[in-house]
Amino acid sequence: MSKYWSDVVKKIQPYVPGEQPKDQKYIKLNTNENPYPPSPLVIEAIKKAADEALRLYPDPLCTSLVSSIADYYHVSKKQVFVGNGSDEVLAFGFLAYYNQGDRILYPDITYSFYPVYSNMFQVDYDLVALGSGFELGVEDYLKKNDGIIIANPNAPTGKLLSLEGIKTILEANMDQVVIIDEAYIDFGGESAVGLVNSYSNLLVVQTMSKSRSLAGMRIGFAIGHEDLIDGLNRVKNSINSYTLDRLALVAGAAAMKDQDYFQETCSKVIETREWVSKRLEGLGFEVPRSSANFIFAAPSRIDAEELFIKLKEQGILVRYFNQPKISGYLRISIGTDQEMTALCEAVAGIQESVVTGGQ
Amino acid sequence: MSKYWSDVVKKIQPYVPGEQPKDQKYIKLNTNENPYPPSPLVIEAIKKAADEALRLYPDPLCTSLVSSIADYYHVSKKQVFVGNGSDEVLAFGFLAYYNQGDRILYPDITYSFYPVYSNMFQVDYDLVALGSGFELGVEDYLKKNDGIIIANPNAPTGKLLSLEGIKTILEANMDQVVIIDEAYIDFGGESAVGLVNSYSNLLVVQTMSKSRSLAGMRIGFAIGHEDLIDGLNRVKNSINSYTLDRLALVAGAAAMKDQDYFQETCSKVIETREWVSKRLEGLGFEVPRSSANFIFAAPSRIDAEELFIKLKEQGILVRYFNQPKISGYLRISIGTDQEMTALCEAVAGIQESVVTGGQ
Repeated sequence: MSKYWSDVVKKIQPYVPGEQPKDQKYIKLNTNENPYPPSPLVIEAIKKAADEALRLYPDPLCTSLVSSIADYYHVSKKQVFVGNGSDEVLAFGFLAYYNQGDRILYPDITYSFYPVYSNMFQVDYDLVALGSGFELGVEDYLKKNDGIIIANPNAPTGKLLSLEGIKTILEANMDQVVIIDEAYIDFGGESAVGLVNSYSNLLVVQTMSKSRSLAGMRIGFAIGHEDLIDGLNRVKNSINSYTLDRLALVAGAAAMKDQDYFQETCSKVIETREWVSKRLEGLGFEVPRSSANFIFAAPSRIDAEELFIKLKEQGILVRYFNQPKISGYLRISIGTDQEMTALCEAVAGIQESVVTGGQ
Repeated sequence: MSKYWSDVVKKIQPYVPGEQPKDQKYIKLNTNENPYPPSPLVIEAIKKAADEALRLYPDPLCTSLVSSIADYYHVSKKQVFVGNGSDEVLAFGFLAYYNQGDRILYPDITYSFYPVYSNMFQVDYDLVALGSGFELGVEDYLKKNDGIIIANPNAPTGKLLSLEGIKTILEANMDQVVIIDEAYIDFGGESAVGLVNSYSNLLVVQTMSKSRSLAGMRIGFAIGHEDLIDGLNRVKNSINSYTLDRLALVAGAAAMKDQDYFQETCSKVIETREWVSKRLEGLGFEVPRSSANFIFAAPSRIDAEELFIKLKEQGILVRYFNQPKISGYLRISIGTDQEMTALCEAVAGIQESVVTGGQ
């Protein structure tokens, strides 16, 4: 604590991202990255753009990237905002739509960055309890509030909320902004982007970090009514006129255009998720149905934290949350078939050694 | 204006960056970019890093980039913060050190983003008038305040404040943070980085957009006492854990290491600035001595705005600020010798045609 810090900074608890080991020895299933590389067209576009034009500022309007997203989703360019990862887009959303002292709603178990933003920007919040199977109760979001954020599919549970449920929430909250954070939507859900022309209070946020294998390039975006997009641009242009560099702009545009590659890699992740879920059930885990590129699974034959530690000792990183309600679960990102086979074998071996007393 | 906007967003006046024309027809002397390309080592490093590892998140600690800056300036890694351009670093500085309702000081003529940040983050400010020759009066910064920001060299004037002046200000303000924004320091000033071990209230902010020819890659940094750096990291980790993508990290590290190229290109810019200043004086301009990669020059034979418009018609972009005290000046970025020769010839031609009634 320093006397030079602002009052807010003295109080905040920053977000702690999953570990990024510097050596490459680990099977890395802890931060929901895609196991497949970005589209070859992305790499090509970057190499082509890595030239002397880097001396010039990027396009502040991010026109080519915005256009590629607008084309993909059949919306107008004025309905698209792009930012430095969906985290930045969400942070700007807090500043754009919520006042200090407002009271917004989100689930008690969800992306742990939401309370961090809330504290940073002094927006109050009610944590709405999920059901016992981690299901979101739509009726809980019909009460008085100043805004709502829902991750769909939810993190770290992977549970999907139906578009019907989202519509009910949107209709009951026409005076405040409802943010649907779709970081994982491409792995099995239907996007709410189709609703933006009907609901002027809906902002859909997505990222290229997961389904488009570009976590390293920091590209997020939002789609909504042009007034909501204008609000985000006003915030951006009051903080940093250019949040995406020239290479991120071309990388993102190329990724949006390579639809075949995108569909192929998403399908592979989904197939792997399905067999791993069954395999872990066979190993005694409870595995709630996931619509994301991770599974949230509770071992029954070993303590979750113990399993987390032993997997790490064997070179496999997964994520453990030492929090009420979810401390019995591990969040396991979906890797390649080979990586997931190694995971399942390691789990089986660890469970065996625990049962037999470590012999 | 939308009913969904927050109160702050309804009130703010976002920053408007200099024009970035989409076609390449212009001689672009309007946003202080470097006319020389980035170091070849930068391009090489980017091409090497453009591979399948882009599927993984960047290092959240930005270790290699931080190290390269720490090495260059002989400070510890804990004294270095990196961000998405110096604009983001400055915005985070507002959040890290200044409270809402605090009253900070900066000159009435300076980087026009400072009042934008102030309004965005609800920090009050006093504009301290520069002298008639745009000189900063050190004694004006010894009065009661909650923080100070000084661009050195100043923008858009290019005027340099001595390190002695900065020391006097630091010593009188030991209870609040003094930010020295050195975006242009490498073109003729002495950095205040050498003072950070003596003054725990000093934060020096720099950018790779100008002297390192990397405006397109969005790399800024700050150097100061580790408590100040810790404050910036707390803000960053409450907004966006990774603000620099993998390619920006390697590009920045390579740029810091190629000292020969850096010195060579800075020297060329300085040489060009000196002859252009003399040439424009010969054309009747008042040209205050600049320590930056631009000159701020007042024509005497033609109205500044008229000259701005006519230059644009001839394909030469410079910057004109329609503001009290500086509406008689143009800010002209230093381009290549060839570009600046074209500028001087265009100015001479325009002035001639005005004097002779456009014949």
